[in-house]
Amino acid sequence: MSILIKNATIITVDKNNTIINNGYIYIEDRFIKYVGAIAPTYKAEQEIDACGGIVMPALVNAHTHLAMTLFRSYASDLPLQKWLESIWKVEDDLNEEFVYYGTALACIEALEGGIGCVNDMYFFMEAAAKACADTGIRAYLGRAVMDSVGSGEQRLQEAEELIEQYNGTQNGRINVLIAPHAEYTCSEEILKSSAELAQKKGVRLHIHLSETDFETQDCIKRRGKTPTQFLADIGVFDVPALAAHCVTLSEQDMDILKSYNVSVIHNPASNLKLASGIAPVPEMLEKGINVALGTDGAGSNNNIDMFREMYLAAVIHKGNKKDASLVDANTALRLATINGAAALGYAGGSIEADKLADIIVLRHNSLSLIPMHDAAGIAVYSGAKSDVKVNIVNGKVVVFDGKCVTIDKELIITKFMQSVKTLFKAN
Amino acid sequence: MSILIKNATIITVDKNNTIINNGYIYIEDRFIKYVGAIAPTYKAEQEIDACGGIVMPALVNAHTHLAMTLFRSYASDLPLQKWLESIWKVEDDLNEEFVYYGTALACIEALEGGIGCVNDMYFFMEAAAKACADTGIRAYLGRAVMDSVGSGEQRLQEAEELIEQYNGTQNGRINVLIAPHAEYTCSEEILKSSAELAQKKGVRLHIHLSETDFETQDCIKRRGKTPTQFLADIGVFDVPALAAHCVTLSEQDMDILKSYNVSVIHNPASNLKLASGIAPVPEMLEKGINVALGTDGAGSNNNIDMFREMYLAAVIHKGNKKDASLVDANTALRLATINGAAALGYAGGSIEADKLADIIVLRHNSLSLIPMHDAAGIAVYSGAKSDVKVNIVNGKVVVFDGKCVTIDKELIITKFMQSVKTLFKAN
Repeated sequence: MSILIKNATIITVDKNNTIINNGYIYIEDRFIKYVGAIAPTYKAEQEIDACGGIVMPALVNAHTHLAMTLFRSYASDLPLQKWLESIWKVEDDLNEEFVYYGTALACIEALEGGIGCVNDMYFFMEAAAKACADTGIRAYLGRAVMDSVGSGEQRLQEAEELIEQYNGTQNGRINVLIAPHAEYTCSEEILKSSAELAQKKGVRLHIHLSETDFETQDCIKRRGKTPTQFLADIGVFDVPALAAHCVTLSEQDMDILKSYNVSVIHNPASNLKLASGIAPVPEMLEKGINVALGTDGAGSNNNIDMFREMYLAAVIHKGNKKDASLVDANTALRLATINGAAALGYAGGSIEADKLADIIVLRHNSLSLIPMHDAAGIAVYSGAKSDVKVNIVNGKVVVFDGKCVTIDKELIITKFMQSVKTLFKAN
Repeated sequence: MSILIKNATIITVDKNNTIINNGYIYIEDRFIKYVGAIAPTYKAEQEIDACGGIVMPALVNAHTHLAMTLFRSYASDLPLQKWLESIWKVEDDLNEEFVYYGTALACIEALEGGIGCVNDMYFFMEAAAKACADTGIRAYLGRAVMDSVGSGEQRLQEAEELIEQYNGTQNGRINVLIAPHAEYTCSEEILKSSAELAQKKGVRLHIHLSETDFETQDCIKRRGKTPTQFLADIGVFDVPALAAHCVTLSEQDMDILKSYNVSVIHNPASNLKLASGIAPVPEMLEKGINVALGTDGAGSNNNIDMFREMYLAAVIHKGNKKDASLVDANTALRLATINGAAALGYAGGSIEADKLADIIVLRHNSLSLIPMHDAAGIAVYSGAKSDVKVNIVNGKVVVFDGKCVTIDKELIITKFMQSVKTLFKAN
C-alpha cells in the first residue's frame, strides 16, 4: 500500500524541529519514503489532502494500563494508595474477556485521539495483544510481574510465553517487554529474574519508579537507599529500561538514571489527579535524560489522551517554576513523539525518510487551530484529540475522518459496557 | 419556545450537588420551569433525547478577551511582560471589523465547547457586543479602561455609552460592566471614576489583580501596599467586583477580598502558560471567597475551552499541594458554572426551576465518557469540548449536534482569516 499526503504543514520532529510548509509525505508499505516541499514523482494508491493543516508524528503513549478504561471515573478524588486499594478489590474479578474489551476500547480512544503506539503494562496480556492487533495500534506489551501477592515465577513465565507468542508479530507492530511492577511490589529475586529474562530475550524492561514521596521514603526506610539506587545496584538497569513516573527523585537518582540510559516516562495527568506531585522534568531534561510521556491508566487519568499529556507537560512546569522558557512547544512535541519511540527502541516518532510511518493529520478548519502563527505552538497549546482527522500506523490508515476504521466500534462499545456491568455487579 | 430534555443524567449543581438519573428538564421561554425524575405533563415544541448522557449547566467563562483569537499561537513560550509587549504592538492596528470577527470566532468556539456565558474585557466593544448578539451567547462586556497610555476619560465615556446602548439588550442576554484594566495601567483617579460610574449605573466592575509576583511587588514598591489593599482603600471594591487572576495574594489580601465580597476569577491555563504561577485557590475557597473560572484570551491560553479550565482547576492544586482532596469534582463544577453566574450576578449556573436556561447536553456515546461510575467525576476529569452535543442559551438552542446553528460559521472563518492576514501584514 502506498499513500501520498499533500498540502501539509509538516511538523517533522527531526533533530532541527523542521517545519515544512505545503509539504508532501510519501509512504510505501510500513515506511516513510519521502518528505519534502517538492511534489514527489511516485504514484500513490491513496492520496490524502491535508488542506494546509498540521501533519505530525502520531503520539507515543509510553506508559499506560489500557484495560483500566473499565475503571474510568471509579474512585475519584482519592490519593494513590487509597485509590489503588479500591481498584485492586475489583481487579481480582477481571478475566480475559473484560481485558480484551477494556483494551480494545482504549485502543480506539487512543487511535482516534492521535496515538500511534502504546506501552501497556497489565495482566491477561494475550487478550490485550489480540485487542491491539485487531485495532491496528502499535503496541509494546508487558505482563505486570509482582510477588508481593501471588507467584512472581508464574507471572514471569507468562511474560516469557507472551514474548514467544507475540513479540514482533503483525508485521512488527506488536512487541513485548518485561514489566516488573515496582520496587514495592516485587522481591529482589523477582526483580533480578525479570532483568535476566529481558537480557536473555533481548527485550526492554518497563517498571514504575518513585511515583510518590511515600514509595520513595518507605524504600529508604526498608533498604537504606532510594528505589532508583536499589534497582541500579541489583542490575535492573543493566537492560534498556523505561521507568514510569519518577516524581520524587534526588539529584543523585537522576544522575543514576542518566548514567544507565534509563528513559523516564512522565505522566502529568495521573500524577496531578492522584496528588503524587510534579516530576522534576526540566531538571531531567537538563541532565540529558530521555523523557517521554504517558497517560497511565484511564482509572487514574481518566483519559487515554496524549494531546492532554503533551499540553500538561508544556504548561505545568512553567507554572510550577514560574519560568515560561521551560518545556517549550518543540520540547513538548519531542516528549510526546520521538522520545517515546527512543524509549521503546523503534525507528518512529518523527517524519523523516526511512522512519516507520506513524503519522497523524489534524483538521485544518478546527477553530482552535486557527490562525496558525506557529505550527509547533498551536499543536501543543491548542491541539486536542478531537482535531485528529487521519491516523496512519505502520503505513496503514487506521482512523479516517476522525473514526477508527479497523474494527466494529459499536460492537466493542456494547461488549465493553456489558463487561463493566458484569464486573461491577460482582463488586 | 418550549423544550423538553429527557433521558438525562442531570448534574444540577444545586446546593446539594444533586445528580438526577433518567431525568427531565422542561424549558419555557428563557427559563427552566421543571427539573425532576418524573416526566412533566407539559407539552414541548422541541424534544431533546439525552440518551442517558450528561446534562449540565452551560459553563461560565468569567474572564476573557474574546477577540484575542486573532493572536492565537502568536508569541508562544514567553513570560507575561514580554508576551504583552509583543501583543500590544499589533493591538495598535486593531479596528472594529477585526474585533467583530475575532469575537465572533471566539463565540462560536465557546458555544460549541459548552460555554453559555462570557465576561469579556477588550476594546471596540460595540463590535464585540454585535458579535455576541449575533452568535447567541450570554455576554458581560467591559470596555478596558486604562490611562497609562492614552485618555482614561475618553475610554470611560465609551464604557458609559456601551452601558446605555447595550446593557440588558437581546432579552437580557447582553450586559455591560465597567472594566478598569489593572492597578498598574490605571491612575488612582481613573480607578475611582470607574468605581463611581459602576455605582451610578448599577453595574459590576471587572479588573485584573495580582497576576504576577512582579505586578504585586512593583505596586508595593510604588504605593507601599499590595494592589488588593490599594484598590480596597480607594473604594474600587465598594461596588460588586470581579478580580481576575489573583495569583500572588497575601493572607491579608484574601481576607480583604472576602470582606468586600469580591469574586476571584481563576485562569489556570493562562497562568501556567505565561509562568505567572498557581493561584492559592484552595486557600481562597477555605476562606469562603467566591472563586469562578476563566480562559483569559486565546492569545495566552491558547483556547476558549472551559472544559480545560475546569479540568486544570481540579488537578493542578491536588498536584501542587500533594493533596487529592483539594478541589474535588463537585467543587470544580461549581467554579465553572454557578460561581461564575454568582460573580456576574445573574440567576444561572445551575439546573433548577426558575433559573435561566443555559444548559448543555453531552454525547452519551463519547468513548471517554464511558463507563459513568461517577457523573460529576467523569464530567470534570474526562469531559472535553468535543463532547458537547447541544448548547442551550437563554432558552434557545445555539449548538445542535456539535455545530453552532445561530450564524454562518464558514463565513465567519473566512472573514476572520482575512482579518488576521491584514492585521499581521501591517506588522
